[in-house]
Amino acid sequence: MRGVSIIGIGSTNFGLLGEMTLEEMAVRACNEAISDAGIEKKDIEAFFLGNYISGMLLGQETLAPMVAYSLGLNGNVAATKVEGACCSSSIGLRLGYLLIASGVHDIVLLAGAEKMTSESTPRVTRALAAAMDPVSEWRTGFTYPGFFGLVANRYMHEYKATIEQIGMVSVKNHNNSVSNPRARFRKPVTLDEVLNSRLVADPLKLYDCCPISDGAAAMVLCASDRAKEYTNKLVEIIGSGMASGLRTTHETINDTDTILSLPATLMAAKQAFEMAKLTPSDIDVIELHDCFTMAEIVDSEDLGFFKKGTGARAVEEGLTQVNGKIPINPSGGLLSKGHPVGATGCGQAFEIVKQLRGEHENQVKNSEVGLTHNSGGTGAVCTVHIFRRSF
Amino acid sequence: MRGVSIIGIGSTNFGLLGEMTLEEMAVRACNEAISDAGIEKKDIEAFFLGNYISGMLLGQETLAPMVAYSLGLNGNVAATKVEGACCSSSIGLRLGYLLIASGVHDIVLLAGAEKMTSESTPRVTRALAAAMDPVSEWRTGFTYPGFFGLVANRYMHEYKATIEQIGMVSVKNHNNSVSNPRARFRKPVTLDEVLNSRLVADPLKLYDCCPISDGAAAMVLCASDRAKEYTNKLVEIIGSGMASGLRTTHETINDTDTILSLPATLMAAKQAFEMAKLTPSDIDVIELHDCFTMAEIVDSEDLGFFKKGTGARAVEEGLTQVNGKIPINPSGGLLSKGHPVGATGCGQAFEIVKQLRGEHENQVKNSEVGLTHNSGGTGAVCTVHIFRRSF
Repeated sequence: MRGVSIIGIGSTNFGLLGEMTLEEMAVRACNEAISDAGIEKKDIEAFFLGNYISGMLLGQETLAPMVAYSLGLNGNVAATKVEGACCSSSIGLRLGYLLIASGVHDIVLLAGAEKMTSESTPRVTRALAAAMDPVSEWRTGFTYPGFFGLVANRYMHEYKATIEQIGMVSVKNHNNSVSNPRARFRKPVTLDEVLNSRLVADPLKLYDCCPISDGAAAMVLCASDRAKEYTNKLVEIIGSGMASGLRTTHETINDTDTILSLPATLMAAKQAFEMAKLTPSDIDVIELHDCFTMAEIVDSEDLGFFKKGTGARAVEEGLTQVNGKIPINPSGGLLSKGHPVGATGCGQAFEIVKQLRGEHENQVKNSEVGLTHNSGGTGAVCTVHIFRRSF
Repeated sequence: MRGVSIIGIGSTNFGLLGEMTLEEMAVRACNEAISDAGIEKKDIEAFFLGNYISGMLLGQETLAPMVAYSLGLNGNVAATKVEGACCSSSIGLRLGYLLIASGVHDIVLLAGAEKMTSESTPRVTRALAAAMDPVSEWRTGFTYPGFFGLVANRYMHEYKATIEQIGMVSVKNHNNSVSNPRARFRKPVTLDEVLNSRLVADPLKLYDCCPISDGAAAMVLCASDRAKEYTNKLVEIIGSGMASGLRTTHETINDTDTILSLPATLMAAKQAFEMAKLTPSDIDVIELHDCFTMAEIVDSEDLGFFKKGTGARAVEEGLTQVNGKIPINPSGGLLSKGHPVGATGCGQAFEIVKQLRGEHENQVKNSEVGLTHNSGGTGAVCTVHIFRRSF
């Protein structure tokens, strides 16, 4: 397996992009990534597009060849859509990585895109539920806020954590995105505002939840041995893990050891760290799947950055701040940068690449190694990727 | 790149499977393929699932990890759903092939599944339109029968072909599936019945169109150098092509040279034949994308089996019969075996494997090399695969 580098990145803003179609968003992000990489479109050998829910929301499927055509790619370029709920575009990242690492391709274009805000909230909520299991989840009335609300209550009970500690995740991530021009929210919020915002699913309030968003992100992957032809700002992918964990959580919903951990995250992280031959202490900057404040804490523990039960205290102690020991979601994360589901995984990698290049608007000092964690459904599918600056 | 073989196959019947959920169908086909291969579930390293439209029809997405979990795969097995309309599961076949050929994996499980008959025809029709382009196709009122009806009229005008010749495709394919236990339709139809069936989109009648169907198919792919551990009945994948062609057809709808050919088929076929180092005259048996009678004729020409404009006459002369020179769709094809869209590509490969093993219920004599052609949308995406018996 040879090295694979990200040589170009592109992104729309995440938020309310009513004026653009889904395809236009994807094309814009791709063109930006192609331009950033300095390649020509004819250099692209394969195209992966992550999208979750354009079928249910827009009545539109088969997006990959459509975007490829609009973008002006040659018809011989295989254009593949992959879907794994909120994890869709990081699955594409993994496939692009594997196909270059193994020598099938030299240059692959990856994109993720989602358009959600043109639809009513009930329709979006119904569409999001499509990533849940009809037997064990739909029938029990589970929703995502409901699930993470349960997790929060159990976590506080089990580890003597406080709702204030959980709310501080939201304060931190909203602060982080003030300087991120791609973020949906760019105003700080206070802990009081978080705690007094509208109740969504006890104990989670509005500011504990990520916003429905539009957006697209893209990147150009290239064999490292060819990447220097195009750029000197190489960021290498040195670890890739992917795992499934559906219903492992829910079948044992009464087992407090299990509801506070997502098995797919544990497995994907183990794969990625083993591949990279690194441990959590080697990671300088992290973008993880904070669909809810509580999710960030669980994920930060599952990924090995904190011992189980200590993640909430770590937030209070400032360890996860941009200038802390373990900076988490300096982009603002899903909570404040936004969560256009099919675009999120690629968007996380975009933010890490900017960090490792030293070009981020909310820069973590001396970042050499970064990690992304992207999760779909209630832990149905998860990817973890590790990146290293190579210049 | 090393050799890749199909060592196990499984399939539900295609048709009205009201008693089974989509997940149950996929699990059944997978278990059959795993059993046929003689592997254990723990041997599987990756899982690809092709599905087109469960989101719009059933409100269910993220199927790959769900099926993987029901099947009892280890959570470390990456479970990926790919979507490319009617071409979905053959895109999965290509990815599985590439990841084994390049040495990433040794054993990959592939499935395709679709549940369509539980919904009303208008809902299914709307969902199928999601594979068309909103700008160039939706706005013009295009439907699939409408498109292939135009093609048929133009083809007859251009090449002095007759509606009887086109209808003979349906007669042949219905006859072929009489002996296929997996087929939705198992009764022969006469040319009179085809020509006098209900008009759908002039000049195409009901029997010119494939039926809405349920079904699932699966297969186990294995590195050829390891395949002999499991079976002696190896069928190798020796060619794989994939291309996009969206709107190339429609932007030039007035150009008669173009509407009678699908560019994605031409490109994918060229790739596959070059990889296999073969020409159309080397192929013994073919399963191609006959979503309409007219499509079979256009495809058979685009794939190089007949010169442009002579495919309809070839049908009349019997060349495409199971005992003809160029046997096409001995399974009954989409027209009579059925077309559960996400399952179709994998189902075509299932039929070819049975042919090359000499085990098909409608066996083409002395079949050593077979070809599948799977197409999505109105030619938006297309795959061509070539297989060879290796025992």
